[in-house]
Amino acid sequence: MTIKLHCFGESGHSYKAALALELSGLDWEPVLVDFFAGATREAAYREGVNAMGEAPVLEDGDTRLTQSAVIQGYVSDRTGRFGGADAAEAREILRWQFWDNHKLSSQAGMLRFLMNFLPEDKRPAEVIDFTANRLRSAYQVLDAHLAGRDWIVGDGVTNADLTCCGYLFYPEPFGFARAEWPAIDAWLDRLSGLPGWKHPYDLMPRAYRASQD
Amino acid sequence: MTIKLHCFGESGHSYKAALALELSGLDWEPVLVDFFAGATREAAYREGVNAMGEAPVLEDGDTRLTQSAVIQGYVSDRTGRFGGADAAEAREILRWQFWDNHKLSSQAGMLRFLMNFLPEDKRPAEVIDFTANRLRSAYQVLDAHLAGRDWIVGDGVTNADLTCCGYLFYPEPFGFARAEWPAIDAWLDRLSGLPGWKHPYDLMPRAYRASQD
Repeated sequence: MTIKLHCFGESGHSYKAALALELSGLDWEPVLVDFFAGATREAAYREGVNAMGEAPVLEDGDTRLTQSAVIQGYVSDRTGRFGGADAAEAREILRWQFWDNHKLSSQAGMLRFLMNFLPEDKRPAEVIDFTANRLRSAYQVLDAHLAGRDWIVGDGVTNADLTCCGYLFYPEPFGFARAEWPAIDAWLDRLSGLPGWKHPYDLMPRAYRASQD
Repeated sequence: MTIKLHCFGESGHSYKAALALELSGLDWEPVLVDFFAGATREAAYREGVNAMGEAPVLEDGDTRLTQSAVIQGYVSDRTGRFGGADAAEAREILRWQFWDNHKLSSQAGMLRFLMNFLPEDKRPAEVIDFTANRLRSAYQVLDAHLAGRDWIVGDGVTNADLTCCGYLFYPEPFGFARAEWPAIDAWLDRLSGLPGWKHPYDLMPRAYRASQD
């Protein structure tokens, strides 16, 4: 049975799950969440798909999972891929996933939304500056960690990498310039060089266009 | 050997780990992180304790772990407590821990810092309003989930509860009033009624006072 992933192209959190599914070789298909038309705020979505009102959501037969890291863990359990070589690596992967959800992707996603998907006259300048500054600290932590190593944990690509890259391939401005962070830049090249890698906009249908039509 | 937890009383993220250690019955002691004096920004801390520059950090012999949820998982592995009854519950616990790190404790912790521990003339009003609004959505999700149930996952207290309560017992203002959220209020009473429960300021040494001396 084909796994369904409720997602949308602009969602870096969705991308983390979609990329894990795609690179693992599992049979899956995206189901568009019409985010910019308000889909995740509607009762049908909250009651029928995800009470947290977030994407992505995975459906695999009777199994329904939310939170990208939980979905990635499910993909690892099913395929043996990306979960780390032992318990210590698994903890280290989880550590980076929590750090990312707290400090990196959460703030990058919000900032990118505020800077690109809100009408220009509704963009909160002080929040944008404040968040951009906090994000620089996160880029610094990741760049320092990646200096002199190929992958975040261990010797190969893991869910730590598939999580932390969530927003970093997007073209829209959100205070991130690859040239400023050479170790992150080289690591993103390694990721996009993986067989089967796809850009988020090639992996998932876009919602911003859909709601503008 | 006594487990050490690098932490400070004002840190709700530290509290999550400290509470899990305390309720599990493991032998542990807090080590003060002098946060307000800048300890986590210093090279000695970044290089010797945690490159992410965060508290808490657990030390147990040669094992060193960061990120509160990872520490809670370690406590569960050692004691069999709070980790859920089966794999489905474990995933559900992890789901709430990720949600908390993204939407609840991350924002509550930041907002409480901005509203209470920054000098009054440095408090960014627009960021405070913006974050308070986002937090209300998180309180709403948690309150709706807890309506009609005693604990976040399954029939007893788990790491999901010990995570989501991280900031909710603090007395300082951060846009949270228990009376507004009856299901959260009743759940916090259940938590504080657990044998061995302690308030964060009774479980860990405070750093704000320490740096003011």
